[in-house]
Amino acid sequence: MTTTIQSWVEEIRSGNLRAIARAITAVENRAPDSHALLKALFPYSGNARLLGLTGSPGAGKSTLVDALAREFRKQDKTIGIVAVDPTSPFTGGAILGDRIRMQAHHADPGIYIRSMATRGSLGGLASTTADVATVLDASGRDLVMIETVGVGQDEVDIVRLADITLVILVPGMGDDVQSIKAGIMEIADIFIINKADREGAERVEREIRNMQSLAPRPDNWVPPVVKTVASDGTGVADLARAIEEYGAFLQSSELGRKRRIENWRTRLLEMLRDEVLHRVVHEYMNGESASRYATEVAEHKRDPYTLVEEIVASIAK
Amino acid sequence: MTTTIQSWVEEIRSGNLRAIARAITAVENRAPDSHALLKALFPYSGNARLLGLTGSPGAGKSTLVDALAREFRKQDKTIGIVAVDPTSPFTGGAILGDRIRMQAHHADPGIYIRSMATRGSLGGLASTTADVATVLDASGRDLVMIETVGVGQDEVDIVRLADITLVILVPGMGDDVQSIKAGIMEIADIFIINKADREGAERVEREIRNMQSLAPRPDNWVPPVVKTVASDGTGVADLARAIEEYGAFLQSSELGRKRRIENWRTRLLEMLRDEVLHRVVHEYMNGESASRYATEVAEHKRDPYTLVEEIVASIAK
Repeated sequence: MTTTIQSWVEEIRSGNLRAIARAITAVENRAPDSHALLKALFPYSGNARLLGLTGSPGAGKSTLVDALAREFRKQDKTIGIVAVDPTSPFTGGAILGDRIRMQAHHADPGIYIRSMATRGSLGGLASTTADVATVLDASGRDLVMIETVGVGQDEVDIVRLADITLVILVPGMGDDVQSIKAGIMEIADIFIINKADREGAERVEREIRNMQSLAPRPDNWVPPVVKTVASDGTGVADLARAIEEYGAFLQSSELGRKRRIENWRTRLLEMLRDEVLHRVVHEYMNGESASRYATEVAEHKRDPYTLVEEIVASIAK
Repeated sequence: MTTTIQSWVEEIRSGNLRAIARAITAVENRAPDSHALLKALFPYSGNARLLGLTGSPGAGKSTLVDALAREFRKQDKTIGIVAVDPTSPFTGGAILGDRIRMQAHHADPGIYIRSMATRGSLGGLASTTADVATVLDASGRDLVMIETVGVGQDEVDIVRLADITLVILVPGMGDDVQSIKAGIMEIADIFIINKADREGAERVEREIRNMQSLAPRPDNWVPPVVKTVASDGTGVADLARAIEEYGAFLQSSELGRKRRIENWRTRLLEMLRDEVLHRVVHEYMNGESASRYATEVAEHKRDPYTLVEEIVASIAK
């Protein structure tokens, strides 16, 4: 490890916000030094509790995350928040959102918020988010919250990498339980009905309960349904308690350890795939050779099946 | 090549429908012999014109594809149709649909229809569809039509692998041009407004024209807008002519060759990625070693970044 990386790691561990911000930017951009940094930070990670929160656009996620962060601050816990919005093609909105949210907390260095947009990359977002969480974890935050807009597989992949997954629903707005992607409902450890003062909250709860009675979890945990009105703080203390309870359940049942192993199995495979693909493209399918191969196949001078076999054989030689 | 594969290839090339059906099933299931079969078939492929057709559910795709097939039959062309529905989780519906559609054509062996469902696989569907098209192509069909429901990236990937891409819109039904995924609009070589006797057809056409004036194509082709009523055959002859015209444009401009090279570049990379991942999982990330690695990382006995580096180094040694 170079002294630069070493001193950077020290700054991050001491909670220096500029060093943390610089590290997250490096990880997000997959900068050349980010790999060495992550290696050096990894031994100091693993102590934070990772919370994943997802819900449809308009479910009041940001407000709820902020309210929950303030609630945990009362217990003197330090918080890192990563807000991922794969639906926003530009960082402009995310950055603006950051600024507005930072203002509310700016007197409190115990809450650090960072937004990430997708930069148009389809794969690897879950991996990058997990690495950003590792930076915040290694910086000594007690709790790292990862919030995302629950609209597709990407988001399921992101929040699945947390220890505890919270799914936020709202009454009305067309996102009845039935219309929510099944994949999202299944990953919930805790359900939140936000804006619960609206009409229809009871119906949403009933629908969740019906679903639960049809498909009990193998670990026998029955995800609680917590009703909140994040904008005025109603129910947020209950939510914090529900999170603590599930945390205790994870601990007592060895489930937390199992879940982290399962998450790492998924992540390792993704990391391996990304790295192998990167190497293959770099060495065997770079601009020049790719054009030559594609031309030969398009002109039927070569068959693609044998070609791919040959390239793979030459890699694994 | 074994004699079994050789005689299978001969049967396919002679147009034996049972041999073709068996080949498609093998390819779709990635059966062990499908790889050798595709290798043996490849030299006989490349002569069919590949048409990709996509549109929202309810746009009348099947009816239009059938009407278009009958139109091309008048010119004595033989047709293969691959209907891909990534939204249908079970094959039941697809098979039933096949039967109904086959009945309409059953007196004519010049039209062969095959449906594919996704079998839940997220990746590789475009690759599999392209391989199925190769089977039909090698069997001597003049025209292979690939139809899919245009709802996401998967479908864009599928129809992008064709020579000519047709995007089907309908008046009303909430799929105004603006609401259609930009990715789908950009890949259209020909636009079809089906059910054009409905109110709003003119408006859809105007919207397409507006979009075109904002973003002209680099090859200077202005995708024509053809209005059809597939159920009574209106406009189908015009559509067949528009397809011929674009085919001639592809020929005259060398664009067809360039597009096939570009398509193969994409496909080769996908094939390589799938094959490499398959090998990596099989040799380095199988059940046992994956569990051991994941446990070591989850317990912080190893850092994942170095581990992945080591595995990749041992592969590429």
